Amino acid sequence: MTDPTTLGQEAAHWLKRLEACSEDGPGVTRLPFTPQHRAALDVLRDLYASAGLETHLDAAGTLVGRRGDGPALLMGSHQDSVRSGGAYDGIMGVVLPALAVKHAKDLPIAVEVLAFADEEGVRFPTALVGSRALSGRVPPDALAMQDSSGISMAAAMEGFGLAPAKVPSLARDPTTVLGYLETHIEQGPVLETAGEALGVVTAICGIERHSVTFTGQAGHAGTLPMEGRRDALTGAAALVTEVERLARNTPGLRGTVGELHVFPNAVNAVPGAVRLTVELRSADDAQRTAAGHELTTFAHEIARARGLTLDMARSYAQPAAPCDQGMRGALQAAVRRAGGKGLELPSGATHDASAVADLCPMAMLFVRCRDGVSHVPEEYSSPEDMGLAIATISDFISNLK
Amino acid sequence: MTDPTTLGQEAAHWLKRLEACSEDGPGVTRLPFTPQHRAALDVLRDLYASAGLETHLDAAGTLVGRRGDGPALLMGSHQDSVRSGGAYDGIMGVVLPALAVKHAKDLPIAVEVLAFADEEGVRFPTALVGSRALSGRVPPDALAMQDSSGISMAAAMEGFGLAPAKVPSLARDPTTVLGYLETHIEQGPVLETAGEALGVVTAICGIERHSVTFTGQAGHAGTLPMEGRRDALTGAAALVTEVERLARNTPGLRGTVGELHVFPNAVNAVPGAVRLTVELRSADDAQRTAAGHELTTFAHEIARARGLTLDMARSYAQPAAPCDQGMRGALQAAVRRAGGKGLELPSGATHDASAVADLCPMAMLFVRCRDGVSHVPEEYSSPEDMGLAIATISDFISNLK
Repeated sequence: MTDPTTLGQEAAHWLKRLEACSEDGPGVTRLPFTPQHRAALDVLRDLYASAGLETHLDAAGTLVGRRGDGPALLMGSHQDSVRSGGAYDGIMGVVLPALAVKHAKDLPIAVEVLAFADEEGVRFPTALVGSRALSGRVPPDALAMQDSSGISMAAAMEGFGLAPAKVPSLARDPTTVLGYLETHIEQGPVLETAGEALGVVTAICGIERHSVTFTGQAGHAGTLPMEGRRDALTGAAALVTEVERLARNTPGLRGTVGELHVFPNAVNAVPGAVRLTVELRSADDAQRTAAGHELTTFAHEIARARGLTLDMARSYAQPAAPCDQGMRGALQAAVRRAGGKGLELPSGATHDASAVADLCPMAMLFVRCRDGVSHVPEEYSSPEDMGLAIATISDFISNLK
Repeated sequence: MTDPTTLGQEAAHWLKRLEACSEDGPGVTRLPFTPQHRAALDVLRDLYASAGLETHLDAAGTLVGRRGDGPALLMGSHQDSVRSGGAYDGIMGVVLPALAVKHAKDLPIAVEVLAFADEEGVRFPTALVGSRALSGRVPPDALAMQDSSGISMAAAMEGFGLAPAKVPSLARDPTTVLGYLETHIEQGPVLETAGEALGVVTAICGIERHSVTFTGQAGHAGTLPMEGRRDALTGAAALVTEVERLARNTPGLRGTVGELHVFPNAVNAVPGAVRLTVELRSADDAQRTAAGHELTTFAHEIARARGLTLDMARSYAQPAAPCDQGMRGALQAAVRRAGGKGLELPSGATHDASAVADLCPMAMLFVRCRDGVSHVPEEYSSPEDMGLAIATISDFISNLK
């Protein structure tokens, strides 16, 4: 096989062409079912052809390239980006396996490379339609969702030459697939900090979100003595502090207060109400759920001690999607054969793999990114790291029975 | 003298008439140099006449009523309200001394009752023009300040029949005034909590405000492990907590974080920056200044420990205005003769008295308000409490040499 750095340079070349398939403005903006999506598909068709993949666009807009007969290993990720995003998120996970297929010495199994139309959910208030279609789990109302111009996803698909009515027929028979491997830029600093090019994902974290409102009594910051106050912000600050403390002291748990609004929010007014969000993520659903209960209890204690009223509700919950033990182990072995440590880490972000997990076993390979940043124009993975990923994917395929 | 409750009922009657001098909508909205202001002046002229006060409207729109010759005790407050405010804030401090003069057995000294046009600063981005004019300290640019319709204060005064060019001539000769006594609704819960109708103000608190920005690194709440975070909100929460702790542990200090903004403020984003305000108030300037220094040091320590950058600057400072010891003592004695304890308390809010303090000694009498609320339609002081205030003011005047 070609040496990894040369492979990585080839990947960088394809990604450069794909980066140009973008709306004007900083970074990459490529939304599903748009002229930019079509331009990217043209590039991907060239790539798939060079890898000997037989190609078709399915009813959900997924570009499917297949080589071989019988049960197939599915590999891929999404073609779309966030607004003013980077050139690697998603699309790199299409290019690297295609090149792995192209340069593989032998292919003991059938493979498919998939480029899903929409994972980010930027254009429509739904996401993962292409990957959900594989297990027949597209929510009934998803295709009726409208973008900001009032165009439904079904209408956008039709305008793109697709037949949205056929989306339900995309569900695969589980006996025809061996598993799903997704390669993705890490979008975090763990691999860079560890000095590792590649990492093996243990699970896609579950997520829960709580919507919290503390209500006290607004008042004049001059005339209200400290002892009589029912300040909603000092109560909220105690919860912000506790979310951080608990997450720091619970290995694997991530806890964030990302959104916080103060009312009336004036320099000389004691805050009468604060609305905030608590988000918890963990690969371990029981750990996450317990943390949610603990924080709810804590918030009620704060409210009671401070004479505040508390309205706290879990507004969203999504269970963790564990990676398949067998695939994980095989992937880790391949990473080690390529010279890496086979570092294991959870994925804090959601990926197409969490949807394909409803169909078949899945695994994920993370590639180091510079400065841990993603979803920005500065997003970057080096040709060296991408080349190691291609070699690892090839090796992983070669060792599948 | 008439019994206090009857006096208080008379005050309530005048305040009822003045409450009607308002824009439509909840509560009282009476801005300076408006038809509502003119209607209030018509009522006050009746009141002044009933108290034997010789009345004129000065160049700043202050309704001045005088009885007697020689150096005078000035008494009064402001006629204007906030939007949808109450019927007592300000205007009660005009009605009660006028009734005290009306019902006084004897007047050993000359008195003036003053109804200032604008203390709240709601219409124009400046305030206290009438009371500042008495010491010749109206800021040079104040009359050029415009309201939201682009009308300058000078133009509004002219439209009201005033001669703004003559405002500088309103400066009084200090030898012609004995002092200034302002009666005001407390706007806080201290008297109600203590079960006292009246309180004697020790000083109008000094104020300082700090503008604080913590900057860390925004990031994805899923992909960023806890250990690598530079979360601006958890840093800000530590400062919010410390402002409260310090103020609670420093008798007489009030500390408030009233305004706080999070960036980017999204449920799944680690906060990259937080902008907030810290306001400190104290009757003791040295105590307040020391607290400001201590909190600045604390904020720098938080920033250093958490890898944040800190931008913290004192954006506003106003020294405390202590009440005159002699007048305070005489007022306290009068409160005690009326059956009260003579409870002393600072004023956390600014009043006309802080401006008149530049001219002459001043003192303030606080009247209990219901539920500690002010600047809202629910604002209320009882006829009984107002009657005790009238009796106390009368007694105070009678005992002046």
